[in-house]
Amino acid sequence: MKIAVVGAGALGLYYGAMLQRAGNEVHFLLRRDYDAIRQNGLTVTSPNGDFHLAEVKGYRDTSEIGPVDLVLVGLKTFANHRLIELVSPLMTCDACVLTLQNGLGNEELLAEAFGAERVLGGIAFLCSNRGEPGTVHHMGQGRIRLGELSGGLSQRAENLAALFNDAGVPCEAVADLRRARWEKLVWNIPFNGLCALTGKNVTELLDHPATRGEVVAIMGEVIAAGNAQGLTCPIDAESFIEKMISATETMDGYQPSMMIDRLEGRPLELEAIYGIPLARADERGAPMVRVGLLHALLGLGEAS
Amino acid sequence: MKIAVVGAGALGLYYGAMLQRAGNEVHFLLRRDYDAIRQNGLTVTSPNGDFHLAEVKGYRDTSEIGPVDLVLVGLKTFANHRLIELVSPLMTCDACVLTLQNGLGNEELLAEAFGAERVLGGIAFLCSNRGEPGTVHHMGQGRIRLGELSGGLSQRAENLAALFNDAGVPCEAVADLRRARWEKLVWNIPFNGLCALTGKNVTELLDHPATRGEVVAIMGEVIAAGNAQGLTCPIDAESFIEKMISATETMDGYQPSMMIDRLEGRPLELEAIYGIPLARADERGAPMVRVGLLHALLGLGEAS
Repeated sequence: MKIAVVGAGALGLYYGAMLQRAGNEVHFLLRRDYDAIRQNGLTVTSPNGDFHLAEVKGYRDTSEIGPVDLVLVGLKTFANHRLIELVSPLMTCDACVLTLQNGLGNEELLAEAFGAERVLGGIAFLCSNRGEPGTVHHMGQGRIRLGELSGGLSQRAENLAALFNDAGVPCEAVADLRRARWEKLVWNIPFNGLCALTGKNVTELLDHPATRGEVVAIMGEVIAAGNAQGLTCPIDAESFIEKMISATETMDGYQPSMMIDRLEGRPLELEAIYGIPLARADERGAPMVRVGLLHALLGLGEAS
Repeated sequence: MKIAVVGAGALGLYYGAMLQRAGNEVHFLLRRDYDAIRQNGLTVTSPNGDFHLAEVKGYRDTSEIGPVDLVLVGLKTFANHRLIELVSPLMTCDACVLTLQNGLGNEELLAEAFGAERVLGGIAFLCSNRGEPGTVHHMGQGRIRLGELSGGLSQRAENLAALFNDAGVPCEAVADLRRARWEKLVWNIPFNGLCALTGKNVTELLDHPATRGEVVAIMGEVIAAGNAQGLTCPIDAESFIEKMISATETMDGYQPSMMIDRLEGRPLELEAIYGIPLARADERGAPMVRVGLLHALLGLGEAS
């Protein structure tokens, strides 16, 4: 399969490398890593075994790639104003586009330009970051849940899941992408924002009873707002929160991506993870009060 | 009048100095400033004119002071575990005690030990800080509103107000001390906490529309909780919030005391300004959701 990766940060580089290693023809849109990858290829370090791809197709412009079968989007959402312009040259034939970006609104943005029937979304559970140019560090996990923007379990989604599974990336096709996105927000909204705001990691938040209580309360707000969207099957608040808290308790000292973005002075993905979910919650009469305060405070940091 | 000042930070030193300058016999419990004040007296710098008190009665222990007519408490509330022990030696005769401390719960603590009929509370609107040992800087304002813990407008409260007014400190006796305390919280709860948490001053909070909106929402929560306490006359949310915001807009770049405490690594007055008001709000069925989140996040910083 001919695949283009748009947004080759840690996530795009890792999944692209896994797909190329499995025999797919992968084309990467590169920026920071262009020179290093063109000269020396791409190295992945991983607890599952390091590997090196000596020949990697890197480009500075997606128009050089031409039509592909699949566009994989890993762009940070704060760069979404460039998303359509970057993806357009790749969508001339029967290509579909799978966005693995964070939060809400990304599939809809792509659907406006290319039609909902060509858009899939996926939620990536991946711990990775970029090392030296030409190197990506996979620290753990990597599982993907993907589905059609328009809902339902399509053959195409099953095929994409198989593509990832064949490449060593555990992947599941889901019938209700919207539910999967809100489920991910149940974790992302409290932990990304609270860690970015306070500079404390997930373990410190859970060890302090008052902030642990607020994490649980925020998760409750997100689940109520998600369930108000008309999911095929509502999220059960009590059991899902317990599952999320238990999972986080095993992530000793983990710093969510937004905390690292803040510490390193990068912009935050506020619109996709907070702004759009808050608007969807308000539209459905399930306002997220604590999340609104968190969003406002995170935005204050951005404005400076 | 023989007056003892317990808790001689910027507030205690300033009001004590003003009272002594007006001819009262003032005794100061001192810690950091003991040597400097015993040797060189106390200097007040102020836009109203600097002055120096050459002879100042300073002590290391309140038992050296003996019985007084009035105990003025300016202790930071995070030191309240020592409050009764410090005040007790002064209360042997007919003394009454006036606490000018921040937040809620201080009068009740004193009342448990000395009886409600001996306790008054006051809200100080004072911009001041300590300079070199032996010097306090008065930057502006200084107005006090004081009243009986047990409510009503007493002759004693009127007399105390006259004492301050005669000393050049604008002072008003109020019939509903509890309302005055909640009114002050309407400003203190949003601005002290949000500024301490984010490191941004009041002007930065108001200039960013999202945080301005959250300040207003938090003020609304505090007013609703205050009104649920059964005030003699409820606080009108709309007009009071407008007044608080307008007043704050004139305080260009102002850093509330809790922000400075956080920046300088001192403990925060979380229990008096957040913990006790939150408990009172819950008791009366008017929970302050945003304030709870703010309190939890401020406490996280303290725990570290």
